[in-house]
Amino acid sequence: MLKKINQIGEFGLIERIRKKLNVGANQRFARIQDQVIRGIGDDAAVLPYTKNKYLLLTTDMMAEDVHFMVRPFDKLRAMQAHHKARPATPQEIGHKALACNMSDIAAMGGVPTYAVVAIGLPKNLSVKYVEDMYEGMQKLAKTFGVSIVGGDTIKSNQIVINVALLGQVEKKYLVTRSGAKAGDWIFVTGALGGSLQSGKHLHFIPRLAAARFLVRRFKPSAMIDISDGLAGDLNHILKASRVGALLWEKMIPRSKVGASRQGGTVPLQEALTNGEDYELLFTLSVFKARQLLNWQQKGKQWFFYPIGRITNDRKQLIPTKSFTHF
Amino acid sequence: MLKKINQIGEFGLIERIRKKLNVGANQRFARIQDQVIRGIGDDAAVLPYTKNKYLLLTTDMMAEDVHFMVRPFDKLRAMQAHHKARPATPQEIGHKALACNMSDIAAMGGVPTYAVVAIGLPKNLSVKYVEDMYEGMQKLAKTFGVSIVGGDTIKSNQIVINVALLGQVEKKYLVTRSGAKAGDWIFVTGALGGSLQSGKHLHFIPRLAAARFLVRRFKPSAMIDISDGLAGDLNHILKASRVGALLWEKMIPRSKVGASRQGGTVPLQEALTNGEDYELLFTLSVFKARQLLNWQQKGKQWFFYPIGRITNDRKQLIPTKSFTHF
Repeated sequence: MLKKINQIGEFGLIERIRKKLNVGANQRFARIQDQVIRGIGDDAAVLPYTKNKYLLLTTDMMAEDVHFMVRPFDKLRAMQAHHKARPATPQEIGHKALACNMSDIAAMGGVPTYAVVAIGLPKNLSVKYVEDMYEGMQKLAKTFGVSIVGGDTIKSNQIVINVALLGQVEKKYLVTRSGAKAGDWIFVTGALGGSLQSGKHLHFIPRLAAARFLVRRFKPSAMIDISDGLAGDLNHILKASRVGALLWEKMIPRSKVGASRQGGTVPLQEALTNGEDYELLFTLSVFKARQLLNWQQKGKQWFFYPIGRITNDRKQLIPTKSFTHF
Repeated sequence: MLKKINQIGEFGLIERIRKKLNVGANQRFARIQDQVIRGIGDDAAVLPYTKNKYLLLTTDMMAEDVHFMVRPFDKLRAMQAHHKARPATPQEIGHKALACNMSDIAAMGGVPTYAVVAIGLPKNLSVKYVEDMYEGMQKLAKTFGVSIVGGDTIKSNQIVINVALLGQVEKKYLVTRSGAKAGDWIFVTGALGGSLQSGKHLHFIPRLAAARFLVRRFKPSAMIDISDGLAGDLNHILKASRVGALLWEKMIPRSKVGASRQGGTVPLQEALTNGEDYELLFTLSVFKARQLLNWQQKGKQWFFYPIGRITNDRKQLIPTKSFTHF
């Protein structure tokens, strides 16, 4: 019996693909650069660029009924989709497709530069709808100085949108998932949980400015963006850094999602496991953590929430289920 | 009434998107590079890189039943698909997804370097199938020294695969669509037509080596890869270069597609209009065209077919229908 994707899960699949690709290239064709600073297994690939900078490259694909809803649910679509989010506007779809990629560049400490956009469209979609998607994307691109420089349009059964985003980062500012050390404090950039219900996943502003501030002033030891949920993404840092963690449950900032929820915020379990928050999760040495908290008392532009610390015990993983597509 | 995509066609849609995006970026966020040498409207985007080189970036999306068949046709799928190609193996799907992008880099005169791969998968697909797709891709990547450095996997209704490919080209070797001049000769790198029937679209080797030979030795005045059909892609060169063309019909090399076809080759109409040949179409000054033909008589590695010449009459477009998705 062949194993199905949903039996091994998204991360099992990624691990298998990584092994498949992790074979040295032969040199038949003139190879100009064969150095890969970071390949599969971080928020973005890190590639050679100039003397002082690395190039960053990332890609994210989004599909109708998985990452966004186009129309209100009917029965069939409710069965196919894995969450009950409200329908997105075309502007929001475009915005989200680019924002997710920007969030990956932010997590490496970098600045986004150029994007290419490929889009699969059902043929009876209106031209206005497609233009509106690009409008949402372009508005965000302009805000962060990104140029959309190319793309592809194809026919498909459902709306599919793929953005590949280039960025760059000064070598001294690069942050990966693998630098967390025992004793480091763990921070997040904002409230967690309920993103699909609140619609945050459709209109969030990627934490690029906060990330640049952090790498310039405090140089986090590790960083990741929270797309799979706090628990899942913290585990990615722990695994890559070969450490454990303890979370201070009461310190974890939880999203407000309307008066109908208990205390006006999401339950802890949702703050830990809900996907698509797109906040940054990072670690700082105790010394720098104190500096950051001092700086913060002066009431500045961003707020960083300390939520726990890194330990030596690699068994101290977070025992909760991560958001996964399969 | 809102216009539907299939009313304005793929190129009408691209033109609208280009206009939408063609607005200067504001500078709120620190902009490191705002120079785009070539954006939407060539085979790949051309971006600043080093003193002597440009960076190239391209993306292509492929969907099941549009760019490849997974299973033999049943009635429903035959209605949905726009051609009757044989089913592809997973290795071929992976190969094609990367090869199309490499062909774009070849058309700019460049060398491919790094790829990111995003893939949408129905959840009951076998893991082996996905691994086989990556195997096909990785084999081609190794041949041309490309590293697959990242990606994304999502759930979708149909198999969708998107590759974004980085490349680089020496500034002196860059070739675009817009340099063709009246008097230039027009060449193609191989036989045209019938690619979907013969399966060539699934296993073609991108013309990277021939392209590098050409830019080093003969520097074409314009170049494009033939993905939409000779007529359509020649028109892209003519439009970008503001020139016309005359084709020597009898000189156009036609694919052999089995004894059942007339004379063993595809009809002229198919050589002119069939999509997905992935040969290179390029123009050379008369002087260099003669040099190339002389070189060729010595029986070398590649064969380049002269098929016509560029004229001053901008009305001399090729009056045939191009391959388009909508």
